[in-house]
Amino acid sequence: MKIINEYWAMSSHPEGMPDIKNFELIRENLPDLKYGQILIKTLYLTLDPYMRGRMRLGPSYAPGLTKGEIMTGEIVGIVQNSMSDNIPTGSIVKARSGWTRYSILSDNDVNLIDDSSFNISTSLGVLGMPGLTAYHGLLEIGKPRAGETLVVSAASGAVGAIVGQIAKINGCRVIGTVGSKIKANYITEELGFDYAINYKSENISEKIKEYCQNNIDIYFDNVGGEVTDEVMNNLAYKARIIVCGQISQYNATGTINGPRNLWALIRTQSKIEGMLVSEYGDKKNQVAITRIGKWISEGKIKYKEDIVEGFENAPKAFKKLFTGENFGKLLVKVSDR
Amino acid sequence: MKIINEYWAMSSHPEGMPDIKNFELIRENLPDLKYGQILIKTLYLTLDPYMRGRMRLGPSYAPGLTKGEIMTGEIVGIVQNSMSDNIPTGSIVKARSGWTRYSILSDNDVNLIDDSSFNISTSLGVLGMPGLTAYHGLLEIGKPRAGETLVVSAASGAVGAIVGQIAKINGCRVIGTVGSKIKANYITEELGFDYAINYKSENISEKIKEYCQNNIDIYFDNVGGEVTDEVMNNLAYKARIIVCGQISQYNATGTINGPRNLWALIRTQSKIEGMLVSEYGDKKNQVAITRIGKWISEGKIKYKEDIVEGFENAPKAFKKLFTGENFGKLLVKVSDR
Repeated sequence: MKIINEYWAMSSHPEGMPDIKNFELIRENLPDLKYGQILIKTLYLTLDPYMRGRMRLGPSYAPGLTKGEIMTGEIVGIVQNSMSDNIPTGSIVKARSGWTRYSILSDNDVNLIDDSSFNISTSLGVLGMPGLTAYHGLLEIGKPRAGETLVVSAASGAVGAIVGQIAKINGCRVIGTVGSKIKANYITEELGFDYAINYKSENISEKIKEYCQNNIDIYFDNVGGEVTDEVMNNLAYKARIIVCGQISQYNATGTINGPRNLWALIRTQSKIEGMLVSEYGDKKNQVAITRIGKWISEGKIKYKEDIVEGFENAPKAFKKLFTGENFGKLLVKVSDR
Repeated sequence: MKIINEYWAMSSHPEGMPDIKNFELIRENLPDLKYGQILIKTLYLTLDPYMRGRMRLGPSYAPGLTKGEIMTGEIVGIVQNSMSDNIPTGSIVKARSGWTRYSILSDNDVNLIDDSSFNISTSLGVLGMPGLTAYHGLLEIGKPRAGETLVVSAASGAVGAIVGQIAKINGCRVIGTVGSKIKANYITEELGFDYAINYKSENISEKIKEYCQNNIDIYFDNVGGEVTDEVMNNLAYKARIIVCGQISQYNATGTINGPRNLWALIRTQSKIEGMLVSEYGDKKNQVAITRIGKWISEGKIKYKEDIVEGFENAPKAFKKLFTGENFGKLLVKVSDR
């Protein structure tokens, strides 16, 4: 039985904000399975800000996409056909298949997903890359102590919301920056953050001073830009800054300038460290997932998903990550089981 | 015997480059010694870039000077009179007396200097604060490994020259940035650095790429600004940046902007850390001084002093730190023994 697949390729490098015209839908006939391979039907695919970096021409931590190449990314899917001794038909797996309806992979290249306790979509969010990013970045670099003050930017996002909640579990005072009143209410009322700052309607400088003048012990940075500048002016002694994302800069077409503020690091004996979740191995990830799962079961961690229906809508949905329209972990539902 | 003392006070906060008019020479009668006190005659006083920070109105890691207050800083001097059981007349001591001809201090507030092996002026330079800054910053934060590439800015300066030489002792490839051809020749020919970049006459961006494209493992930053920007574009995986000084920014009257480049930390998994020598205790300092002294004796570390004659010239000499005229550890010789 021949299967016709569809996948989204990058048709051109975006200049500034990515647009539908930068993507192209490709149809292909899938080959037959070889021994050890499985055929996966995508159920959910994830959309994450880092993918914008892959569409760039400059240097990044992973090779950039060339024109016509399939958009990278993780999916969860169901095994529709198997020539593997290890992964039977019907299994739920996570894989780096990219933006595709179907994929054929070696059984070594996928992870089995246990869907007994949580919806499988969580393996791309709170129990997947974004949750692990929050967990490792905060605990391994931030090293929070009870009573410390943490600021997290993009605080209602897939990473930020988990950072703030794990910081609360660790006894920190938590301030989040967000881009709307609804998101501000969400993080303070639903997630239990101490304060929210709406960077679109409030004066960041004044609000940061009001809530945390010179006492920011940890800053988990997902956005960069002005929020970071104001935090730098209010660091505590021996502060730790985790640079996880710089979403305010991803669509810049030229160089963006900001104040030179490294002096603040000398003055306060602080450090800034870049973090990539891929640096942490399976062992640490397994501990993290078990722990986050337990916190979810205990009601200590809540999560929100923003699920867009239909594979055809992936490029349009991707743009939402950069406009502020997205609220919760952004996923595309590609198919039912 | 009444002694009339002279000291330099800050008469006004400088705007931009510090000027002679920001200083005032004050005369005073010294009181009699009390029990436990010693009278010190200054032999050398040190001039260091950090003092510019003390003259600023904004926040710093130590309280700023108020108008009329004595300029802070270390001196080495000889004990001319002693009411102490511990420190006899004739001892050579180091103290934080400030820019003064004489000082009266408690014997607890000074350190005895062993001048049997090295000239006493070294206790304000290679065997004092600048040498310790280089030693701890490089070894504790930079953690150099043989074969790694290090860039140091202000490379012929009191700190930079020692950083580069300790990095060479540790088997690193060393590139220094300097502001003149004479300084460039000095670090490559006298100190054994691999390359010098003259930021005034050469294209920093091209030269950094030529000598260390994407392979800077350690950057010891004394200056900030453009040199730092170009280094950020050429970091190796897991690079370490020690922020020790930002001399290019100290005399700025407004905010100076530069490219927002924290993305480089994510891309390369690197970190930036502020360092202050005062964070390292006496125990570590003693080990460092012994080790640096041994390296000097073995000819592995060379140092250069820029000694200005005459207490009256301290303010004029201070300015040299910011104009590039200074070459070597800047000291004022106040008196003979």
